[in-house]
Amino acid sequence: MERKFIKDFQENTNISGFFIVFAKDLRKTKSDKNYLDLTLMDKTGSINAKIWDNVEDFTAKFEKGEAVAVKAQVTSFNEELQLRIESIRRANVEQDSVYGFALADLLPSSTKDPEKMWSEVQQAIQSLQNRFLKAVVQNIYTENEEKIKTHPASMILHHAFRHGLLEHTHSMLRIAEGVCQNYAELDRDLVITGILLHDIGKLIELEPGLTTDYTDSGNFVGHVVLGRDILLQAIAKISDFPEVLKLKLEHIILSHQGKLEWQSPKEPAFLEALIVYFIDEIDTRFDQMKREIESDRSTGDWTNKMNYFHRVLYKGE
Amino acid sequence: MERKFIKDFQENTNISGFFIVFAKDLRKTKSDKNYLDLTLMDKTGSINAKIWDNVEDFTAKFEKGEAVAVKAQVTSFNEELQLRIESIRRANVEQDSVYGFALADLLPSSTKDPEKMWSEVQQAIQSLQNRFLKAVVQNIYTENEEKIKTHPASMILHHAFRHGLLEHTHSMLRIAEGVCQNYAELDRDLVITGILLHDIGKLIELEPGLTTDYTDSGNFVGHVVLGRDILLQAIAKISDFPEVLKLKLEHIILSHQGKLEWQSPKEPAFLEALIVYFIDEIDTRFDQMKREIESDRSTGDWTNKMNYFHRVLYKGE
Amino acid sequence: MERKFIKDFQENTNISGFFIVFAKDLRKTKSDKNYLDLTLMDKTGSINAKIWDNVEDFTAKFEKGEAVAVKAQVTSFNEELQLRIESIRRANVEQDSVYGFALADLLPSSTKDPEKMWSEVQQAIQSLQNRFLKAVVQNIYTENEEKIKTHPASMILHHAFRHGLLEHTHSMLRIAEGVCQNYAELDRDLVITGILLHDIGKLIELEPGLTTDYTDSGNFVGHVVLGRDILLQAIAKISDFPEVLKLKLEHIILSHQGKLEWQSPKEPAFLEALIVYFIDEIDTRFDQMKREIESDRSTGDWTNKMNYFHRVLYKGE
Amino acid sequence: MERKFIKDFQENTNISGFFIVFAKDLRKTKSDKNYLDLTLMDKTGSINAKIWDNVEDFTAKFEKGEAVAVKAQVTSFNEELQLRIESIRRANVEQDSVYGFALADLLPSSTKDPEKMWSEVQQAIQSLQNRFLKAVVQNIYTENEEKIKTHPASMILHHAFRHGLLEHTHSMLRIAEGVCQNYAELDRDLVITGILLHDIGKLIELEPGLTTDYTDSGNFVGHVVLGRDILLQAIAKISDFPEVLKLKLEHIILSHQGKLEWQSPKEPAFLEALIVYFIDEIDTRFDQMKREIESDRSTGDWTNKMNYFHRVLYKGE
Amino acid sequence: MERKFIKDFQENTNISGFFIVFAKDLRKTKSDKNYLDLTLMDKTGSINAKIWDNVEDFTAKFEKGEAVAVKAQVTSFNEELQLRIESIRRANVEQDSVYGFALADLLPSSTKDPEKMWSEVQQAIQSLQNRFLKAVVQNIYTENEEKIKTHPASMILHHAFRHGLLEHTHSMLRIAEGVCQNYAELDRDLVITGILLHDIGKLIELEPGLTTDYTDSGNFVGHVVLGRDILLQAIAKISDFPEVLKLKLEHIILSHQGKLEWQSPKEPAFLEALIVYFIDEIDTRFDQMKREIESDRSTGDWTNKMNYFHRVLYKGE
Amino acid sequence: MERKFIKDFQENTNISGFFIVFAKDLRKTKSDKNYLDLTLMDKTGSINAKIWDNVEDFTAKFEKGEAVAVKAQVTSFNEELQLRIESIRRANVEQDSVYGFALADLLPSSTKDPEKMWSEVQQAIQSLQNRFLKAVVQNIYTENEEKIKTHPASMILHHAFRHGLLEHTHSMLRIAEGVCQNYAELDRDLVITGILLHDIGKLIELEPGLTTDYTDSGNFVGHVVLGRDILLQAIAKISDFPEVLKLKLEHIILSHQGKLEWQSPKEPAFLEALIVYFIDEIDTRFDQMKREIESDRSTGDWTNKMNYFHRVLYKGE
Repeated sequence: MERKFIKDFQENTNISGFFIVFAKDLRKTKSDKNYLDLTLMDKTGSINAKIWDNVEDFTAKFEKGEAVAVKAQVTSFNEELQLRIESIRRANVEQDSVYGFALADLLPSSTKDPEKMWSEVQQAIQSLQNRFLKAVVQNIYTENEEKIKTHPASMILHHAFRHGLLEHTHSMLRIAEGVCQNYAELDRDLVITGILLHDIGKLIELEPGLTTDYTDSGNFVGHVVLGRDILLQAIAKISDFPEVLKLKLEHIILSHQGKLEWQSPKEPAFLEALIVYFIDEIDTRFDQMKREIESDRSTGDWTNKMNYFHRVLYKGE
Repeated sequence: MERKFIKDFQENTNISGFFIVFAKDLRKTKSDKNYLDLTLMDKTGSINAKIWDNVEDFTAKFEKGEAVAVKAQVTSFNEELQLRIESIRRANVEQDSVYGFALADLLPSSTKDPEKMWSEVQQAIQSLQNRFLKAVVQNIYTENEEKIKTHPASMILHHAFRHGLLEHTHSMLRIAEGVCQNYAELDRDLVITGILLHDIGKLIELEPGLTTDYTDSGNFVGHVVLGRDILLQAIAKISDFPEVLKLKLEHIILSHQGKLEWQSPKEPAFLEALIVYFIDEIDTRFDQMKREIESDRSTGDWTNKMNYFHRVLYKGE
Repeated sequence: MERKFIKDFQENTNISGFFIVFAKDLRKTKSDKNYLDLTLMDKTGSINAKIWDNVEDFTAKFEKGEAVAVKAQVTSFNEELQLRIESIRRANVEQDSVYGFALADLLPSSTKDPEKMWSEVQQAIQSLQNRFLKAVVQNIYTENEEKIKTHPASMILHHAFRHGLLEHTHSMLRIAEGVCQNYAELDRDLVITGILLHDIGKLIELEPGLTTDYTDSGNFVGHVVLGRDILLQAIAKISDFPEVLKLKLEHIILSHQGKLEWQSPKEPAFLEALIVYFIDEIDTRFDQMKREIESDRSTGDWTNKMNYFHRVLYKGE
Repeated sequence: MERKFIKDFQENTNISGFFIVFAKDLRKTKSDKNYLDLTLMDKTGSINAKIWDNVEDFTAKFEKGEAVAVKAQVTSFNEELQLRIESIRRANVEQDSVYGFALADLLPSSTKDPEKMWSEVQQAIQSLQNRFLKAVVQNIYTENEEKIKTHPASMILHHAFRHGLLEHTHSMLRIAEGVCQNYAELDRDLVITGILLHDIGKLIELEPGLTTDYTDSGNFVGHVVLGRDILLQAIAKISDFPEVLKLKLEHIILSHQGKLEWQSPKEPAFLEALIVYFIDEIDTRFDQMKREIESDRSTGDWTNKMNYFHRVLYKGE
Repeated sequence: MERKFIKDFQENTNISGFFIVFAKDLRKTKSDKNYLDLTLMDKTGSINAKIWDNVEDFTAKFEKGEAVAVKAQVTSFNEELQLRIESIRRANVEQDSVYGFALADLLPSSTKDPEKMWSEVQQAIQSLQNRFLKAVVQNIYTENEEKIKTHPASMILHHAFRHGLLEHTHSMLRIAEGVCQNYAELDRDLVITGILLHDIGKLIELEPGLTTDYTDSGNFVGHVVLGRDILLQAIAKISDFPEVLKLKLEHIILSHQGKLEWQSPKEPAFLEALIVYFIDEIDTRFDQMKREIESDRSTGDWTNKMNYFHRVLYKGE
Repeated sequence: MERKFIKDFQENTNISGFFIVFAKDLRKTKSDKNYLDLTLMDKTGSINAKIWDNVEDFTAKFEKGEAVAVKAQVTSFNEELQLRIESIRRANVEQDSVYGFALADLLPSSTKDPEKMWSEVQQAIQSLQNRFLKAVVQNIYTENEEKIKTHPASMILHHAFRHGLLEHTHSMLRIAEGVCQNYAELDRDLVITGILLHDIGKLIELEPGLTTDYTDSGNFVGHVVLGRDILLQAIAKISDFPEVLKLKLEHIILSHQGKLEWQSPKEPAFLEALIVYFIDEIDTRFDQMKREIESDRSTGDWTNKMNYFHRVLYKGE
């Protein structure tokens, strides 16, 4: 019985594997018999699963949000695949890693190599000429290295996966190079620093884990203002940090959503702030459109309109 | 020659007085002669003034934004009163106070007694039951007493005058009492504290003086976020300040404009935040409508539409 | 078998009770057998109910919108409680009041004492100084006493329950006192009268009963304009009613929704109209936010976004 | 010295004529001499005029809003024609009709024959089959015949001239015939009656005269609601008027602006109300676009964007 | 066994007939048995249908989008009628016309006679005075006669049925006559031509057939721009076509949606373009409101709000 | 008497030079004497100018929109410089080039070298791999080389100067390189071609010359649709051009404004269209913000709010 990921499941085969329990509901059949209705997830997708027998035993063995080891048969219902579970139990690293259990396999994750992205981001930091900007970024990136490497960039909208924040930042830095070369008026150091720090408040706003959620700080205050806090704490450790430079960095973070109605308390008031906003916008919308096109299940060459853009998108070649 | 305020000037009389120079432009007549075109201001209003003679001498004696001593004749042009200046010079406290010069006469100011308002605000602070909330407000109000007593509440829109912030806060507190008594669900301490601190960032955002202006911090960051800074600095000095209480206060300040498009990065997420927003809204719009009605110069019982509300307002009895 | 209200039902118990039939649909099982799918309601909530047996007999015994006497077993489906009905019949006051049947138990209702609220509203009317305003309110409140005491304030949005209109009006009056004391410019009599009459058109717009619905007049004309009709009819009985006072009252009613897009054909054009609008706004939004927070069933300290405010609300302490 | 209308004035000629004084301001020249600055108007247009001499005498002889007899020289200033007035006095019918004075010459007016339009409107009334609708329209049109014949349809936006209301109504009736023939579903009587009454509240909202203005009722209540009053008063005199028919007529008047933000407290809820709204819309926008194109003074084939439509309009052939 | 249309089906009868397969899904019962879930459609409506037996045989005999011959029993489920299919096979004209199979019976269609409408449209074309306009319309209508006669006017929103485009155009022409007679300023030929061509791009945008869908050109380019292509191709064949006339026709087509946000790249810039837009608007909204009222299934005299207009509509007499 | 450009003029000097007459108005002084009021322009700015003497002679010698040779004295009025013209006549290349007359000196122009930009644009064209895309761009760029080199990119909003279209296109190409390298999903050829052609309709929409204006085609049709015409004409000459590729190019041009309300009849429906829109947006907004900051004349470090962005912008270092 082969170890497979969800995207490779085929009808009428038996599988074993590890998954995260995304949803778990106890229901009754028409004939009043209990069963468990689950949604299981690994990094390649999600699938509905049912437990028809021994429901009372099994339901005690795991909770929603946990990682589980599963044996099941792949069936189908309404033309979608479904698992009929034969056994299920909580998984854990000590016991199950010999069977191939690794949390990284369960969580959707960037398709790019995080260490390579991290290394290129470090080069961008090294390239900064302004010693104040370089110091403030180094402080923040050194102190938060582990978090920055693994954090998602959002809950749902874009780069909503492990390493998502790093992938988003890394992608923006690559776009920024061409933009800064094109416009002689731009202070490249300020643009690069702005990109590196614009979403840093996400480290506080979002609580990653097996499933991502907003923290209380995230809901009460929001990543835009929280990111400025991280900036100001780092600046406070650097002597003689120029006042206007500090204000400009604060403003870039506060205005990076670009529009007041997107929770930015200020809109871009100078060229570098405008550019950080636009590069963020490009990378965000690009990721959203790519995913909407990939995930649409309509027949034919066009998606339906039920997506972020509220319009049909072209899926053909 | 009598000392008079602008609102009491009458055509074809001579006056002497002290004013702030709100605008000063050197212009030429059709016949190519230099003259000075001024706007002078005291606490009762503003008036256009001309210097036709000795222009070169007079122009060197004062700058825009300064207080001046003036002798002039009251004429009229296009049915509006105007000054024909005979002499003008910089005013100063040492020399001119014997002649009745007092800065307080030149700046528009609250019509209410600031000491009385301050005293009632202090009573509101004393009435707080929650020792954390009381401490944080006391710290901030003690440290900023002088500023809070005199600051305007905005540049133009509402309470845009000396003591305006105090008058606005004081007025909101009075409304809050009835509201808190009416809704048993409300934590009165949180509402009162929210009102006392909601606009505290204005102390940093606006630079008062002979004329009010935005500071760099005001333009780059804004009073909403700056007010939260003042709050957090005060909380940092109080040990064991409860975390959720801190977040709620932050949220009240961040959301008090009520709508994202009004530069609030969050919108009210609990009842006390909703109430602080609404009481702020009432006091702001009330002051605006009152002033629009008072300052409208249309004939008849209705204002024109050129006001904040974009509609005709009733001026009759 | 104990008499219980819906909010106190527990799985695997038997109950008997009286309910309003909010929905009644005849359906078929997969095996082509008829069953009845009902929604039952009392003042504490609503619950789904099924009749699997003797469907043809039972379906003839009651209609949607009627009060019924029910015996049933409390089961659960999809983690929500459900009733399996054993017997059901029409309830009526004559026969069933001995068993505890009272319509007041079936309809959601204000949690405040209507007689106490009515009495305080009467005091507000007595406090009016202006004899014309006092007369017009007294006429309307005397003539419509029974209706005003029991009417809901809306179908769904706020105070959508028995005595809702009275509770809403009463609450607004309490807030108004502090506001009128705070602003010397306000004509208190006009504000109080405006509050007492602003929603009076709801008496015609909404048809209360076991379930509230819009009348034809409500849909064709709307409570804003219908309220002005009631006002004008009362004024017509008072001799020498001052013309401008009449127009101001009409305007307060017509503009009390505050914004054209909320079905107000005029927006507030003087201070008292502005204040009536704002106090209505506060009491409406407060009630909505309170209910959204109470009724949200998400886990954790935050509601989901599927509410009137389209944002997460804080439910924690 | 020939009697001429404003549109026929030519530079360097002398004219005499009768005009309405649209604006009258006493001003001073640079050299401090009083002069009168006037705007004079007849049915063909308006012109600026100056009185440089005998200002004190002349200013006593007429007021703004009156009709005057004038002798003057046609000069030009900034490429626009201007009058230099030699004599001016109040005009009156008794004395001046022998000189050709007629108020109708002074007021801009429909270019169509009011008696002919009135007669065709009467035919439309006669054509109504439903006796209730016929009666209500006849009552209103008989009682208000003189007013309806001469009233403007608005202050500024469209048909803002003598007989404008009649021209607007008449034009809508002509369009309605084709529409009613096209859609068998329409109740023609209801559409025709709706058109005849939709703007009837303008009789109260606007105070016509030498210059049009809003009445207090117009500002406090508005023509939409006032028109329904006229309707209800007329219906009250007709016995057995069907209730739903009454509500539909009320609704047509209340919803005829089509959108809430245009001061309609309801939006069209049945086909006849939708059609009355659309025909009103066509006639209103047509008149506006026609006038914007006629009155634009840009060179070339396109207007500028400073018009109701906020876009360039084509003026060429 | 009688030949019946869907709207005439009655429970517990047997039917045979021809239908279009609008949806076809293979599903499993709780007991894991395959069945087919279909939606069948004819010109009178649509109905759900199940195949419980011989699923594998039947599923091979037809595809979604095809016409089929069906024998079935009419049952009901959830108070809606449903078919239990006994036999099903692909239908075709050669074999089945003797049994009454006609595609025209399967597709919803205009209730008006297409030949009569076509003939009246031809009269409108003949009535054109301007030889260039007449030529361009004749070219297009001759070349596309068959398509124009049968095309729907939209996928869903209005006139979404066979002959819908012709019915919509025909209806607009009838309205236009009265409008053109009313406004002497209008160039009737231009209005009539504009109406005849405004939606001509729908011939390319929509792919009619058993079910209507957007073409790639429709999605990438849209009917507004595609319609101008058809116009320009026809004009290219006519020598000396006046340049401004060509531009005006282009503009009428490009601006006929009236508003930029409705995919019109220009808004009407002259009177004829404004009129074509408004007549299109009337006919479109009229058809929508009529269908919303007809298709609403709420009890009582009012529709619910779940319709194009987002408000309740009156369904009573 | 030195040859100087407008930005170098100093009060109380005499100048001679060549200018374009941007505005020319005949006016009268208070004393009724004719004078000419002109606005003159060269590539460095614009200035007001007066002709007080020999007005009749001079006015015959030139028209608005022509190039003129001028001798004048630099004076000032209202603190702005002004010319008092002593002589003026039409300039022409034959006669005046020896005196330094060159049209290029009179028109505002890109600060970048057009030949260098053109050469880099040619390299971008050469780099295209897809032979169809390369052919279509080469055809269009070869045929329109002179126009593309000199055209402005807009009338007012951005790159509104000689070579503006080339500068805008060139700048977008430079940004595109980094973006295409960053996103492996992008078809670089399609993005580059989209950029090269997105604004090509401006060649028809705008009539450059001494002053830029919209053509009739520009006003009736607009550059978005006109640009697609140029594309289609070029594609028609290339055999076997793939259909979907053609549609994608059409869509990129039609959707490049990004939003329906900005006159794009479609919004981007695939990734390359999204990217062309965003790069256009960046370059447009960057140019606007840069120019708003440069041209603002407020004192202090902040612009006023009277700019495209409706907010204060930072002008300091």
